[in-house]
Amino acid sequence: MDVTGLTTPALLVDADLFEHNLRAMSEALPGARLRPHVKAHKCTALASRQAAAGHFGFTCATVREVEGMAKAGLGDDLLLANEVLDARRLGDLDARVTVAVDSEQTVEAAAQGGVKEVLIDVNVGLPRCGCAPEDAGRLADLARSKGLGVRGVMGYEGHVVGLPDRALREQLTKESMEKLLAARADVGGDIVSAGGTGTYDINTWATEIQAGSYALMDVAYGHLGLPFRQALSVLATVISVSPGYAVLDCGLKALGMDHGNPTIEGAEVWFVSDEHITFAPGTPVRVGDRFRVTPAHVDPTVAYHERMHLVQGDRVIETWEVDLRGW
Amino acid sequence: MDVTGLTTPALLVDADLFEHNLRAMSEALPGARLRPHVKAHKCTALASRQAAAGHFGFTCATVREVEGMAKAGLGDDLLLANEVLDARRLGDLDARVTVAVDSEQTVEAAAQGGVKEVLIDVNVGLPRCGCAPEDAGRLADLARSKGLGVRGVMGYEGHVVGLPDRALREQLTKESMEKLLAARADVGGDIVSAGGTGTYDINTWATEIQAGSYALMDVAYGHLGLPFRQALSVLATVISVSPGYAVLDCGLKALGMDHGNPTIEGAEVWFVSDEHITFAPGTPVRVGDRFRVTPAHVDPTVAYHERMHLVQGDRVIETWEVDLRGW
Repeated sequence: MDVTGLTTPALLVDADLFEHNLRAMSEALPGARLRPHVKAHKCTALASRQAAAGHFGFTCATVREVEGMAKAGLGDDLLLANEVLDARRLGDLDARVTVAVDSEQTVEAAAQGGVKEVLIDVNVGLPRCGCAPEDAGRLADLARSKGLGVRGVMGYEGHVVGLPDRALREQLTKESMEKLLAARADVGGDIVSAGGTGTYDINTWATEIQAGSYALMDVAYGHLGLPFRQALSVLATVISVSPGYAVLDCGLKALGMDHGNPTIEGAEVWFVSDEHITFAPGTPVRVGDRFRVTPAHVDPTVAYHERMHLVQGDRVIETWEVDLRGW
Repeated sequence: MDVTGLTTPALLVDADLFEHNLRAMSEALPGARLRPHVKAHKCTALASRQAAAGHFGFTCATVREVEGMAKAGLGDDLLLANEVLDARRLGDLDARVTVAVDSEQTVEAAAQGGVKEVLIDVNVGLPRCGCAPEDAGRLADLARSKGLGVRGVMGYEGHVVGLPDRALREQLTKESMEKLLAARADVGGDIVSAGGTGTYDINTWATEIQAGSYALMDVAYGHLGLPFRQALSVLATVISVSPGYAVLDCGLKALGMDHGNPTIEGAEVWFVSDEHITFAPGTPVRVGDRFRVTPAHVDPTVAYHERMHLVQGDRVIETWEVDLRGW
């Protein structure tokens, strides 16, 4: 099928750029060195391509993502890199499930939910989840006392991954990982899980990198000079043309907006409404013309869509369900 | 069921505030004076409450919304207040479907798709869809020549609805509607469809008002002194607590972010990540505590969720599917 047959707005994944991203990453971080994060794409079909590239362990952000990956037969080694207080849906899955814990309550929830293994989540500088490094050993002991296997530690240097200055990224990653390794000395276990697309080649302390954005790539990461290419766009149709501007059928419900407006090559985006982009085209356009809109943030864009289409030029090669949405 | 049984993040609709909003609006604009816009809630169960309040005609923004409303038996009089270039899915529906047109191409698409009736969409000041007022008569003639019934005109004063100064809202609404009535003189038909929640009691020129936000209400509209109350929130759970801040399991994929960060009563939101809000609570909190988060923009928030729960205090009265998502 040709993209002209698609109902718009429609998520497109450029097959060549996507394959390039997978290849570049698996060359840098082969096999278990990468634990791809599925939150960026929420799509088991895409994850199966990452598995085919040699990565059998995955990172998830929600219980639904873990469930979906298990159901899709991608449950060799699933890490829920997030705290949960109700782990009951995880305990029965036909998969190896490891959950992040950072408090007595989340250790208790894992044990109560029938989860068998945990990582101690350590705060390495980002004010979000994670225990204090000096508390990690105590939580590991608590987890073991409740029958949980403790596989090691995780700590996300999310305050570092987007910094444009590479030397600063290196310095702060090193400082973050020193905290994580100190915690690991108290915790034990084999795994030191950390990192993201912005530190994939900097974070040499972690045993595995939790990168997700690299596969479809984000505009924000695009400024870091990484070898990954923006593969995702939203196909939209011009539905109205007026002197000086035109309107596309793609709006707030098709675009993650927390990083601001999307961009359109050769055109200026004026504003975005629920189902519209008003923009000034660089050259005259007609009703029915189609544009590829680049969202400012991939993850919350994908989460609005039911499916994404893998395309080569204007040809739709495959259509993938975005099947890990919701909670 | 109690809200404590809900998986978070979860959309909550306060039943009393919602009923208040419906009552306040149907008293001001009874029956066909209001054509509720379903884009704000994307939920046929909620729309059926609006129908029970006496409003049998509805406004939609997408083909999917029209399809879903027809399938739910709410198809007495559905207006797709948006331009489409492929109307084929509309022609066969068991419903009265009227489509907005603003160009030769959209007139042609309506005729080709088997749609029977149209409104001429007129630009009344918002740079988005709509033909020039002086072109409306020509498009109406074109539509009739293709066998389409022309029911009148529509024109959305979207540049006016959010202005905080009521006198300015009144003045600009008047100017917008003068343009629309001039177009209507050329077009004919009974319907002058316009307006929104911000001009529901100002726009006395339109025969029907397309308000949608009033039912669940938006923070932005909350500054206008309207008689509608914010009925929508996102229930979230504290999953991690650190000195000075805590983390909720509700993030960018559960919140429309184009109007900025959500708010939490008595607390300060620091930042929002894919699945987290980091916030400074006003009083000490514990892991497992729950908060109601007020999103900055209702419409793109609802579009992320599979369902919403009608609650009275902490009791879940009904659960409604958000069944009009997608395109």
